[in-house]
Amino acid sequence: MNQLTNDTAKALETLRKTVPLVHNITNYVTVNDCANALLAIGASPIMADDIAEAADITSISSALVINIGTLNQRTVASMVAAGKKANEMRIPVVFDPVGAGASKLRNDATREILNQVKITVLRGNISEISFVAGLDVSTKGVDASVADGNHDAVAVAKAVAQNLGCIAAITGAVDVISDGNRVVEIRNGHPMLSKVTGTGCMTSALVGAYVGALKDGFIAAVGGVASMGIAGEIAFEKAGNIGTGSFHAAIIDALSQLDAAQMQERAKLNEA
Amino acid sequence: MNQLTNDTAKALETLRKTVPLVHNITNYVTVNDCANALLAIGASPIMADDIAEAADITSISSALVINIGTLNQRTVASMVAAGKKANEMRIPVVFDPVGAGASKLRNDATREILNQVKITVLRGNISEISFVAGLDVSTKGVDASVADGNHDAVAVAKAVAQNLGCIAAITGAVDVISDGNRVVEIRNGHPMLSKVTGTGCMTSALVGAYVGALKDGFIAAVGGVASMGIAGEIAFEKAGNIGTGSFHAAIIDALSQLDAAQMQERAKLNEA
Amino acid sequence: MNQLTNDTAKALETLRKTVPLVHNITNYVTVNDCANALLAIGASPIMADDIAEAADITSISSALVINIGTLNQRTVASMVAAGKKANEMRIPVVFDPVGAGASKLRNDATREILNQVKITVLRGNISEISFVAGLDVSTKGVDASVADGNHDAVAVAKAVAQNLGCIAAITGAVDVISDGNRVVEIRNGHPMLSKVTGTGCMTSALVGAYVGALKDGFIAAVGGVASMGIAGEIAFEKAGNIGTGSFHAAIIDALSQLDAAQMQERAKLNEA
Repeated sequence: MNQLTNDTAKALETLRKTVPLVHNITNYVTVNDCANALLAIGASPIMADDIAEAADITSISSALVINIGTLNQRTVASMVAAGKKANEMRIPVVFDPVGAGASKLRNDATREILNQVKITVLRGNISEISFVAGLDVSTKGVDASVADGNHDAVAVAKAVAQNLGCIAAITGAVDVISDGNRVVEIRNGHPMLSKVTGTGCMTSALVGAYVGALKDGFIAAVGGVASMGIAGEIAFEKAGNIGTGSFHAAIIDALSQLDAAQMQERAKLNEA
Repeated sequence: MNQLTNDTAKALETLRKTVPLVHNITNYVTVNDCANALLAIGASPIMADDIAEAADITSISSALVINIGTLNQRTVASMVAAGKKANEMRIPVVFDPVGAGASKLRNDATREILNQVKITVLRGNISEISFVAGLDVSTKGVDASVADGNHDAVAVAKAVAQNLGCIAAITGAVDVISDGNRVVEIRNGHPMLSKVTGTGCMTSALVGAYVGALKDGFIAAVGGVASMGIAGEIAFEKAGNIGTGSFHAAIIDALSQLDAAQMQERAKLNEA
Repeated sequence: MNQLTNDTAKALETLRKTVPLVHNITNYVTVNDCANALLAIGASPIMADDIAEAADITSISSALVINIGTLNQRTVASMVAAGKKANEMRIPVVFDPVGAGASKLRNDATREILNQVKITVLRGNISEISFVAGLDVSTKGVDASVADGNHDAVAVAKAVAQNLGCIAAITGAVDVISDGNRVVEIRNGHPMLSKVTGTGCMTSALVGAYVGALKDGFIAAVGGVASMGIAGEIAFEKAGNIGTGSFHAAIIDALSQLDAAQMQERAKLNEA
């Protein structure tokens, strides 16, 4: 396990040296946080969702992050076009199926994107990834519901990763990353992260930053998820008692100062 | 009046236990703050504005909040579709006619929404609610203008509530809530609230949280408006002197820590 | 140079007294920051991007700010319609060609806007303004790339200002403002400003506030750019060591408390 921690810490150093350009087609609720999280971790964000430029912007980027948080029929077409261009140019793609299972539009969009775009890393909560896995799903908005604890995240992650030939990252109280065989559990984070909107979206964006720098989806998923978890811990220590507004700013503070040494000290990675 | 304060404090407890899912079709300027305010007060936010899912998302929600802050022709149709679904399923609807009176599009959209959707709580500044009441209106952007002090908020609130058969909530230096007969004035708040964008939108979202939990529009309007006013007072005490950026975060901090005891101590409710 | 500093300090006082309404057709990434920056400096923001109201909203505003950060085919038409109305009514127009040079859509939109709308102040980084000037351009996302240091900002600013008959404001480590003859360099700011998304967009919005109050594009460009630079310095002194999340809030804090005396003391303006 020390090897994985070392690799993840090194990945952060590589990311900060590389400054990858990350193209995000994402929702208008948390997009500012995604941009600031990307800048904080050492990447450069670009947001562009019109069909007339989506593929062009992807083609100059190091990674593409697709997030369907506030999808509409116009942007779904852009997501597919950008994803196809990324596949064509071997640019890694992170997919965050926000709210999959909650509406026909989200379900159809999720299916369409998965049918037409080869995904490098799929990141969501257990509800969303279970939907993708074709299991029953009870969605309460875009946050994971308590009932979701009933699912076996490890089994779901492995199955989805095998089915889609991608890395699956299921975030929750314990995060699970799998490539279909290997499974890593991450025990960083803080419950207050669920009281700030966009911590999931930011995690997907961070995975995009790592994968844009490294081109290794597994380490990228571990790095992105661990970065947000550790940032949440540090943020709670510094500002959590004040309230969720201060905690929100402190997450970005922590990401902006996160370094390899903190990753080494704090990362709680466990091969399952 | 003690009864109303008690009921409002109790409403906050109920809200925090209920964790209502609140569907927001809102503007892209303040949507992140609305989501974080909802999480802070104990609700769960979902934003979805495409016509292909708006009614579906409403149907799984406890309340719908419609806000025309950055409306466009695509989203107005979604607002109407979601509103009709809410009416059909007896899900309460909060309507925030941002900038009503400022353009033909906003005026037409306001009329269309009011003609097709039965509103539970209408919340706006005196300019906006006066427009709804069919009075002359002088709008300066989306913030209430000083000249609006000339209107009689109590008379406007009563008239609109009677005409539309809803609760009217007019926010300003003194907030006025009416169901057409009963009138409550709320004297919480701080002038700096008008120097942060979205405090009005957040108030409407908070009313949505209360009404989703309680299904009582009057207490919900009092609860939502008083919550923002009290949060503004606490935020100014903690961070207001530093500037409006710190004050902004402190509003969310205060909402996240607001409890029934604070509501009891601080609420300045007055039956007019 | 004292005269220019005096004029800029006085401009801030005028702005705070005037409270200009500034219409922004802008991107959904940084729009909340633009609105809060406008409120902080003493203006009143309104955001409206539908073709059915764009010109109406411009017609009641003191300035129009067009920003193509997340443009789409729907909003480009609104930008042109609003810009034409502004020209017709002699309302000043600020144009921020975010990412010009990065995609055909952005290039075409930039050309179309410049062909159809007379611009008062053009603000961008050296990549973007060089594109407008018809020079070679290497764009890395929407942030200025290091390679851009090769361009001669003074020459580019003068050429663009002469060609378009506008004020050109190129922001970077040293900011350059020109009307085609006169050139001012501004040496305020802090490197951390480039680690928060939207500081460029906010600068354009601030220029819109000044030009809405003053109707003098040159002083407005100096005032807007210097305000952001000074706010960045103060923000770094107060919060920069904590991280970019705290620094972000501190920028708005500083803008909200910026006064003529600070402008006099801190502005580093230099006629080139």
